[in-house]
Parts: sequence; C-alpha cells; structure tokens
Amino acid sequence: MPRISESTVRRLSHYYRALAEVEAEGGDVISSQRLAEREGTTPAQVRKDLSHFGSFGRRGLGYNVAHLRREIRRILGLDRRWRVAVVGAGHIGAALLGYRGFSAQGFDVVAVFDNDPQRIGQVLGAVQVRDVAELRAAAAAEAFDIGVVATPPPTAQAVADLLVSVGVSAILNFAPRKLFIPARVALRNVDLTMALENLSFALTPARGSRRRRAQD
Amino acid sequence: MPRISESTVRRLSHYYRALAEVEAEGGDVISSQRLAEREGTTPAQVRKDLSHFGSFGRRGLGYNVAHLRREIRRILGLDRRWRVAVVGAGHIGAALLGYRGFSAQGFDVVAVFDNDPQRIGQVLGAVQVRDVAELRAAAAAEAFDIGVVATPPPTAQAVADLLVSVGVSAILNFAPRKLFIPARVALRNVDLTMALENLSFALTPARGSRRRRAQD
Repeated sequence: MPRISESTVRRLSHYYRALAEVEAEGGDVISSQRLAEREGTTPAQVRKDLSHFGSFGRRGLGYNVAHLRREIRRILGLDRRWRVAVVGAGHIGAALLGYRGFSAQGFDVVAVFDNDPQRIGQVLGAVQVRDVAELRAAAAAEAFDIGVVATPPPTAQAVADLLVSVGVSAILNFAPRKLFIPARVALRNVDLTMALENLSFALTPARGSRRRRAQD
Repeated sequence: MPRISESTVRRLSHYYRALAEVEAEGGDVISSQRLAEREGTTPAQVRKDLSHFGSFGRRGLGYNVAHLRREIRRILGLDRRWRVAVVGAGHIGAALLGYRGFSAQGFDVVAVFDNDPQRIGQVLGAVQVRDVAELRAAAAAEAFDIGVVATPPPTAQAVADLLVSVGVSAILNFAPRKLFIPARVALRNVDLTMALENLSFALTPARGSRRRRAQD
C-alpha cells in the first residue's frame, strides 16, 4: 500500500463526520459529488482518497452511507481504544482531562504525571496526578499507547524523549515547540498557541510597514 | 509587502518562543544558525522569514534576543488585546474558558453563547452563557474581534455565517468540519478530533489490507 499522506487522513476524518451527519438526516446513499461538496473538495479527490483502501461504491449508484462510515471508522482505527498517558497537569492537561470528546473517540487517559509537588496527588478527571519520576515504572506495568506532552515548552523535548524511551507508539504534542522524535513514533501537534498567533497576525494591520533599521 | 504564508507565521511563532527561552537562560545574542537548530530549520530560512519584516541582525553578529523578540511580538500582533465571543458552551467551549493561556496571549473571552436552555445562564470562567439569539444585539454593543466556533459540526456553518454577518474579523474553528467563509475574514482551525484520528490511524496496523469488495 502506498504511504497515506496526513492530508488524506484529514479528509477521511471529514468524510467520516459528513457521513455521520447524512446518516443522522436519514440518508442511505451519497454520491462522491455530494460528499465532495460538503467538504469543499472534488469528486475525483473523494474517489482517489477512498481508493487507497478498497472499493466502496458503485459507479452511478454512490456510496452506502452506513457501510462507508463503518469502513472509514475501521480505517481510522476508531473501533479501538488507546491507553493515554498525559505529562503535564497544568492548563492544557487539565483542559484535556475535562474534554469528554477525548474518551468518546477511544482515547482513555489512564495516567497523568507532573513534576510539581503541588500538583502531584491532585485528582484530574478520574485520574490522580503522579510524580513524573514514576513514569518509567508505570509504563512498564500499564503499557501506554500514546503519550501526551502538555508541559511548558522548555521541558517538552525531555518529556518526549522519556515517552519514546518507555515505548509509546505515538505522541500528541500540545507544547508550542518543535519536537524531535524517531520516525517510528507517530507525532501530531495541536498547537492552540500557534493558531492564536496566526489569528492575531492576520488581524494586525500594517505589519512590517515600519521597515526601519534595527538598533542591534 | 508580499503575502506572508501561514507557514512563515508558524515559524515566527516558534522563533518567538525560542527567543523567550534563550532570554530566560540569560542569552543576549543568537545566531540564525542557532535559532534554526532550535526549530529544525535552516539559517537561510530564518533569515528569509525575518527579511519580510525588516532588517533585524548584523552579519556575523547575530540577533539581539530581546529586541528581536519584541519585534516579532509586534509583528504577530501580540502586543494587543482581542475581544473574543465563543459560540458553544459544551466540552470544547468549557475547556477553552478554563484555558488560561488564552488570556495570557491577549485573547479576552468577553461573551459566550449557546442555544441550550440548560446551559444559558451558567457561568463559565468569569462569563455568563447567553442565548445565541442575543448574539447580534450583543455584537453591535460589544464589538467582537474574533468569533470562536465551538458547536457540534451540524450547526458550525450557520454559526460561522452569523459571526461573519455581525462583523467579526476572524474565526477560530474548533468544530471538526470545513467552514466556508468570505476571504476577508481570517479563519484558523484547531482540530483536536482530527489530530486524534490522525494518531489512531498512524497507530492502526494493516489498514487497508482487507481490500475486499464492498457489499453496497
């Protein structure tokens, strides 16, 4: 199978949710044309994306909504549950623990770690915050699939290194910092900070208009 | 000035935080080489990104850390505050209201709206949830800069249309759905759902290996 790009997976996610909506509206069948319109892409793109994984429709008849949704669910691995360890019990960690969508999508936060004595012992969601010094032993016993980096930027790389060394298969990084990890470990970044800075940049007029000489 | 790409802005965000770290470590000056290494890019890329906005360093001497940080802060519009209205007081809305980084970056959530009678009247963060039917009148009085879409996917587009019609300059979309909005309004998506699905896809072995004929 050819390597599937991140943007293909992103579109599959979109199709998956569009199909859920169509199903909720009572639709049985959808054409690639209509699926494409809902997601702002082309029918050819829809057919190409799906063709990586098999043959799901019939020419001229469209896709069976329930069946295609089930297949995409399987392709995306959403029919499984994943054991997640969160490192960092600050703002983002706490928000994550409070975010029920996490569990609804098959991600079970089974452990939270921090290095701040004031946070260790606190209960977030249904999980007690443990000392990050215990992470290695905990990983051996509890087999985490995914590590979440929710620490301040300066410690993010060290935490990622630790998570890689205890054998997680994937890292979800919320720290606004580039992480360097081995290619065998999947890495995704959710960078709220960066999205905000992108927005404030877009909102800021006349940027760069002062092309004055820097004083340094 | 040429149009600045989203990826340039993303790198500026990274440089900004790297400079903050260097400053915290007591560094006065940094070379484009060292700034590039911290962010996994090249010195030429660093120089090119910064050159859009002026001349900030001296050949062979590097950049003055405090000065460059201040300049990037200005370029990114982080020296301003923005008035934010959140629509949707569910999981994501509540997590956002609890996320202190939002305010730390100059984004003040001044209003929250929902259409669920059970949520209207509740207090999230320091803000009382109002009926979304009041949004138009509130916007006229309170001049929101940014609208946050934190509703379920089926209503996200209608909410975005409403926010555009009351004159927000930017939309931050947390709904896992593509939004169609006029080009004059800035749009950024923070899609946790999609990041999770991307991760579970990456973790799922042997996907697509069952290239069986679909039964539809």
